[in-house]
Amino acid sequence: MPHFVFVNDSLVPADEASLLIGDLAIQRGYGIFDFFKTMDGEPVYLDEHLDRFFHSAAAMRLDAGVNRVELKQRIGALLERNGIANSGVRLTLTGGYSPDGYSLAQPNLVIHQSLLAVPVSAEPTHSIRLMTYPHLRQLPEVKTIDYLVAIWLQPLLREKGADDVLYHRDGVIAECPRSNFFLLTDRDVLVTPGTNILKGITRMKVLEAVNGRLATEEREVLLAELTSANEVFITSTTKHVVPVTEVDGVRIGDGRIGPVAKWVSAELYKRAAPYGRR
Amino acid sequence: MPHFVFVNDSLVPADEASLLIGDLAIQRGYGIFDFFKTMDGEPVYLDEHLDRFFHSAAAMRLDAGVNRVELKQRIGALLERNGIANSGVRLTLTGGYSPDGYSLAQPNLVIHQSLLAVPVSAEPTHSIRLMTYPHLRQLPEVKTIDYLVAIWLQPLLREKGADDVLYHRDGVIAECPRSNFFLLTDRDVLVTPGTNILKGITRMKVLEAVNGRLATEEREVLLAELTSANEVFITSTTKHVVPVTEVDGVRIGDGRIGPVAKWVSAELYKRAAPYGRR
Repeated sequence: MPHFVFVNDSLVPADEASLLIGDLAIQRGYGIFDFFKTMDGEPVYLDEHLDRFFHSAAAMRLDAGVNRVELKQRIGALLERNGIANSGVRLTLTGGYSPDGYSLAQPNLVIHQSLLAVPVSAEPTHSIRLMTYPHLRQLPEVKTIDYLVAIWLQPLLREKGADDVLYHRDGVIAECPRSNFFLLTDRDVLVTPGTNILKGITRMKVLEAVNGRLATEEREVLLAELTSANEVFITSTTKHVVPVTEVDGVRIGDGRIGPVAKWVSAELYKRAAPYGRR
Repeated sequence: MPHFVFVNDSLVPADEASLLIGDLAIQRGYGIFDFFKTMDGEPVYLDEHLDRFFHSAAAMRLDAGVNRVELKQRIGALLERNGIANSGVRLTLTGGYSPDGYSLAQPNLVIHQSLLAVPVSAEPTHSIRLMTYPHLRQLPEVKTIDYLVAIWLQPLLREKGADDVLYHRDGVIAECPRSNFFLLTDRDVLVTPGTNILKGITRMKVLEAVNGRLATEEREVLLAELTSANEVFITSTTKHVVPVTEVDGVRIGDGRIGPVAKWVSAELYKRAAPYGRR
């Protein structure tokens, strides 16, 4: 049975959920989105995601056409209709059907649910390798649909044997295309970039979790700090906490999953637990 | 009567021409396009546009799924079906229906025709004002669908009383979002940026037209050169040649449409004439 998708105020089967080719996402790559997960049918950190969704929409001058209460009702109706317990839900808001293919029009709002496995373990089970690349996302503090460079880089990642890319500008670390970056210094300070990044909800939850238990700094983090780092990990709604044991072929710390990544992962897992079963 | 659109190999009415929401243009802003005009039913500089279309597709690792002969057949069938004499034809190639919303899939090819008036005069009838903005397009030498910053800037343009934006990085001029930039120096050398830009077909035709009749240079052009410039104009398939008489509120030359812009415009008009009436 196909699942359903909201396209504006219509609930339609996924294989019919479409936008006309005049939409500014298709014509001009113009749109924003947000993405949250559900555990046991319950949205996780929904209000935080909706805060960011409305912030992104306003920053890009897009009117969602619904307020928070109406959007929650629509999300609730979609979850009930589909009955998928553990999922990712994506809210996409595009530039709409522009008469001249350039000026903003009434945005189109798409709400789409997909299967997403909940992590089976509170502790990270694998680590990844990053490749650095000199790039800063356009309008980096807004969750736009712009992943042009990230997708374009995929063959290069495979060629270099890396799992993901780490953007930097002039040696100042920004973020991975879909994740935030954390580094534990040799003095056990947990640092993370504070500007020119998309501030993830998981990043926020990490900072909340470690508050008072570990020194933290939101500041410029340099590529040069990688060589002396005790640990590195990245975070996202989908990926949770993923330890990084190699950057550009150079080992981070002792090359193994570190205790802080493990602790942070378990702590986040615990904090999200009320949203679902364990 | 609605006109028709090719979506892959299907000719469908425009009000049904759509892509499923899983397409990477909608999900990730990933796609390329090209745009040519027809005069009296005849495509203008079609081969040049198709060269660039296939170049953009290859650069973004997108397989058009048709070769040049097949694409021309499809364009021909569309033009015949619609019977719109003076038009713009847009070829859009997207990242396709990605199973994971991130990896490239089989691209979708959309061919869409819209009304476009042929200029009524060989000489420019109006001039415009530009506003400068520090920005370099991502992958600037590829005609991607990424116009995020350009569209985002539109309210600022209106606020500043400007007609279009001129991108630069660190004072080095690049291009306007949809046009190329030319400057006639105080020594009557026609200069235009040679790198970090999308090389327009009209730009190419300007350089061909002036070859041997005016000194030209493809090189770094600085914002600082604006103050002493005799003329500035921008070029594009849609806009043809448009004189610029003001940048950031500062007058260019004597503030009037210059003789070189007029001559270039007339010359291009003459060269394109075999494609249409006149």
